[in-house]
Amino acid sequence: MADETSSLSYRDAGVDIDAAEEAIERAKGAIRSTFGPRVLADVGAFGGLFDASNLGEEPVLVATADGVGTKVRIAAETGRFSTVGACLVNHCIYDALVQGARPLFFLDYIGTGKLDPEAVSQAIEGVAVACKKEGVALLGGETAEMPGVYPPGEFDLVGTLVGVVEKKHILDGSRVKAGDRLIGLPSEGLHTNGYSLARRIVTERMGIGWSDPFPGADQDAASVLLKNHRCYLGVLQPILEDPSLHAMAHITGGGVAGNLPRSLGGKGARGGRSVVPPQNVFEQLRAAGGVELNEAWRAFNMGVGLILAVEAEDAERIAESLQAAGEPVFLMGEVVESTGVEWIS
Amino acid sequence: MADETSSLSYRDAGVDIDAAEEAIERAKGAIRSTFGPRVLADVGAFGGLFDASNLGEEPVLVATADGVGTKVRIAAETGRFSTVGACLVNHCIYDALVQGARPLFFLDYIGTGKLDPEAVSQAIEGVAVACKKEGVALLGGETAEMPGVYPPGEFDLVGTLVGVVEKKHILDGSRVKAGDRLIGLPSEGLHTNGYSLARRIVTERMGIGWSDPFPGADQDAASVLLKNHRCYLGVLQPILEDPSLHAMAHITGGGVAGNLPRSLGGKGARGGRSVVPPQNVFEQLRAAGGVELNEAWRAFNMGVGLILAVEAEDAERIAESLQAAGEPVFLMGEVVESTGVEWIS
Repeated sequence: MADETSSLSYRDAGVDIDAAEEAIERAKGAIRSTFGPRVLADVGAFGGLFDASNLGEEPVLVATADGVGTKVRIAAETGRFSTVGACLVNHCIYDALVQGARPLFFLDYIGTGKLDPEAVSQAIEGVAVACKKEGVALLGGETAEMPGVYPPGEFDLVGTLVGVVEKKHILDGSRVKAGDRLIGLPSEGLHTNGYSLARRIVTERMGIGWSDPFPGADQDAASVLLKNHRCYLGVLQPILEDPSLHAMAHITGGGVAGNLPRSLGGKGARGGRSVVPPQNVFEQLRAAGGVELNEAWRAFNMGVGLILAVEAEDAERIAESLQAAGEPVFLMGEVVESTGVEWIS
Repeated sequence: MADETSSLSYRDAGVDIDAAEEAIERAKGAIRSTFGPRVLADVGAFGGLFDASNLGEEPVLVATADGVGTKVRIAAETGRFSTVGACLVNHCIYDALVQGARPLFFLDYIGTGKLDPEAVSQAIEGVAVACKKEGVALLGGETAEMPGVYPPGEFDLVGTLVGVVEKKHILDGSRVKAGDRLIGLPSEGLHTNGYSLARRIVTERMGIGWSDPFPGADQDAASVLLKNHRCYLGVLQPILEDPSLHAMAHITGGGVAGNLPRSLGGKGARGGRSVVPPQNVFEQLRAAGGVELNEAWRAFNMGVGLILAVEAEDAERIAESLQAAGEPVFLMGEVVESTGVEWIS
């Protein structure tokens, strides 16, 4: 560290350009493995190049930016960086998917207080593995060392995904009508929302550490809370162009009531919470935190990952086809003319 | 705040969903003002929709993600949030522009420890105003309140831009050859790089506050350091398809030596630093920080915003056309076969 009169360098100011380059260098192979024939530039260009010729008849790009919330703090505290990257990719895929789009490419950003090449390359590799699995090109990214903005050890992880949908297949709520049935798809734990509350309950109310067993589970607390965002792309792709599929909602921050109405084109929903298969993680968090039922349904997904609004007479057919594909769906209720979400149980 | 036995809510855990909604609500008008006829969804959809029909004969999308570094800390400390948003947009535009692309749409992300609706809406409005000025749609974004990841008052600002270029007009370094002339375009201050070092010099070595006059300038220190990223899109657009334009480099983190070679397709450069018009801000920072010349050229842009590599015999014509358009360019040197950057002054 420089003393008061000596020459100051960028490294003295807490920024290590070499560490950033090392992290990218380590992750290069994983990044390149996501490239398909449409990717035209290698890692390190100012911008990623994606061939957009013949994307469709009337292609519409769907773009979404998001983070994984304070789930990153559990990764930082436990040194397990790989699942948050996958969560980020999946979260963004579903934000595009619910408008009918298949994903094309992804860009990531990692901001951190002190750049640890091992942690950063693990996080990027987690992103790359999830991208490859879903056929998404990891087209670019940025790693920024920002002392002061982030305390030492803390980091944020942000992603942007671009997908494509044919104009006539966009799910924008315009096809939704009262009487449509609501089909719920189960989540797998918290996905990417409610972590500030969940972390506080685990550390303050349960009083357990991240490597202690989580109540009622055969895993430690970190594994339960770092669980990856469930994957819906494969099971939903076959019905994306089904005319009876009218809308989809991704249940993120704000819960069912905060997200379902965003997809319904001005209409609302009436449904039951008791039909959703209960999950141990939410039961335990509610009990230990004394979280009111309505508050829990606003902070957490409470077991609902995605909701489909479908033509009433085809609801059974669609539900059965999803079940046949291995997705344990549940009928949650129906679309109504009034706005918001009315719970009947 | 909840006591030890009471019911916990999301707000108790430091997350205020209403504050996030208020910030977006305030900025909605500015966001909508950036929408052109290709934007198909309103603010609040899960993903932004951008009509990609007829983007060109062989359209290639150019995508880039970036932040503005610890420039955000000066914004946070002074409560001046609008210019960092514009810097972010411009920074991303140039990362796409240097590959020959015109910008199409932008997405922003704001992460913060404690969400202040006024600050967040100011930052988003800064992004929106810059987008509108350059004809870019602000297609989506995310605001995340993440207590602990960010200390109170701190925030990060991340952007992703997607542009388009005809395949035959991509600038990927393949046209670059030894003997090409290098034309520099001046920066306006630090743009978005070198802030951790600059902030440390201002606060520790100069010992001045953000509202104190900056040495040698008729502005306060915050105004000098928050200066907006210079705009090159208008002046460069007319020459983007000129066959004598072989490459462009955006001088960001790592300075000229860290960025110019990225654009030269495996070749290097020999050039002079003395031809770059000196700027007071860099002179003062170097003097007060005792920063070595080579270190300063790695941490800061040192007065060079963009560098063009052009066909030698057309260098004068292109330089004169840029000067006629009001851009005070300078000839910096030439492309050589060996890699890296060799300074002859």
